[in-house]
Amino acid sequence: MNERTVFFISDQTGVTAETLGHSLLTQFASQNFRQVTLPFIDTEDKAREAVQRIAEAGAGDTLRPIVFSTLVQDELRAIVRQCDGLHLDVFDVFLEPLEVELQQKSTHEPGRAHGMSDIDRYMKRIEATNFALANDDGGVSRNYDMADVILLGVSRSGKTPTCLYLALQYGVYAANYPLTDEELEDGNLPDFLMQQKEKLFGLTIAPERLRQVRKERRPLGKYSSAQQVRFELREAEKLFRRFSIPNVDTTEISIEEISSRILDSTGVERRVRP
Amino acid sequence: MNERTVFFISDQTGVTAETLGHSLLTQFASQNFRQVTLPFIDTEDKAREAVQRIAEAGAGDTLRPIVFSTLVQDELRAIVRQCDGLHLDVFDVFLEPLEVELQQKSTHEPGRAHGMSDIDRYMKRIEATNFALANDDGGVSRNYDMADVILLGVSRSGKTPTCLYLALQYGVYAANYPLTDEELEDGNLPDFLMQQKEKLFGLTIAPERLRQVRKERRPLGKYSSAQQVRFELREAEKLFRRFSIPNVDTTEISIEEISSRILDSTGVERRVRP
Repeated sequence: MNERTVFFISDQTGVTAETLGHSLLTQFASQNFRQVTLPFIDTEDKAREAVQRIAEAGAGDTLRPIVFSTLVQDELRAIVRQCDGLHLDVFDVFLEPLEVELQQKSTHEPGRAHGMSDIDRYMKRIEATNFALANDDGGVSRNYDMADVILLGVSRSGKTPTCLYLALQYGVYAANYPLTDEELEDGNLPDFLMQQKEKLFGLTIAPERLRQVRKERRPLGKYSSAQQVRFELREAEKLFRRFSIPNVDTTEISIEEISSRILDSTGVERRVRP
Repeated sequence: MNERTVFFISDQTGVTAETLGHSLLTQFASQNFRQVTLPFIDTEDKAREAVQRIAEAGAGDTLRPIVFSTLVQDELRAIVRQCDGLHLDVFDVFLEPLEVELQQKSTHEPGRAHGMSDIDRYMKRIEATNFALANDDGGVSRNYDMADVILLGVSRSGKTPTCLYLALQYGVYAANYPLTDEELEDGNLPDFLMQQKEKLFGLTIAPERLRQVRKERRPLGKYSSAQQVRFELREAEKLFRRFSIPNVDTTEISIEEISSRILDSTGVERRVRP
């Protein structure tokens, strides 16, 4: 199949260019893309080197490269624009309408988006991450009064990565508590959870998918048996219904989507933004 | 000060709209923005509700809202375009040049970017996150042969959040090992690290900043004393020099930037992309 190289070029981390490019390229599912990120392109020399790498990739492929860039400085954009590829830059397109609307010239200084322009923002993310780690899997801390949200679900339903993502991306304090045979058989939740009932949010998952995930961890035994998995999920869903705990099925969705659904459903405020 | 509301509207999670909007808005530092994310706007009714919310925000503020959107469906974009605000949509601008370049119509199906289009991608992120947790802080697993990178640094230099970010965002296997008084006084690294020397990457931080971070955790005692902090950082930097371990100063940079510097410096391949 014809291969094509996609470049993400940034004077900073490249996260914005990658995120934008990924959103757009998923609209062209049948294509075959080789992806290269070139971060910290913040001098004219580095921009010329990037143009050279684009040329080399284009010469190797049968099709010319696509270049997503987020270059704040006009001079660097002008250099990359000369590349032999389709060049799409966020600042080229969106900066001018924003300058008009805001009646202000942009700073044209690189490194504000994912640089540490804000120590406070950094600390919030770190503290939320520490909170998630200390309150993971029913962990010893159980500072549930400090939590923004407490995720409930059976083992491997996606609780831990979701909590960490909420912390790192949004500075949200997310704890999680695993539903074990004790809660599932009793049909009850411990008092320390019931005291925080309005913060509870459930994760469900399809039995077959859960078995697949558990087998990656422990291929044999009760843990990943069809019977055990079905029992746990059935009882967990009963608990969510019984106590009217909002929940989301994580089977077909990504960590980003689980997180967005939780924030959207609970109305928890993002402390920081990506 | 005049306030202005910024909306991030998406038929999916809103992550792309948030990331893009944040990059652009940081170019206008003096402005005061109230930020609202409206995810999962995937029907015409919801799009009309969003337009209504934009109108209400505009009526409350002195300035009209700015709306960043990533709406794949033309009909939904057409509705949101009528809002009383500055509307900037990624697909409006970039989809057509991509369709021309790729000689293919885009699918116009929502939900591909951060939906679970790829179970494999999800599993890679989860597995990398589990690896980071099991190999955090010199953790019991020490599966360093499986690691892509092993971060070294003194306590609170940013190792854990960076490892988790590398795992969640890029599926990279990142372990971390804390430099304690033992290594710092001896000027040596344990054998199990020296055997993986090519994977080692150091984090440094300015003494005053480290004191500030440590004081948040433990305000009193040796741990956050000026003397101890200076000793640890001086000896850690000596170790990095002695063993030619590449390293980055995390004082002024964000988790995204630390991560990008590590990937850029080591050449470790991203297994997945945001």
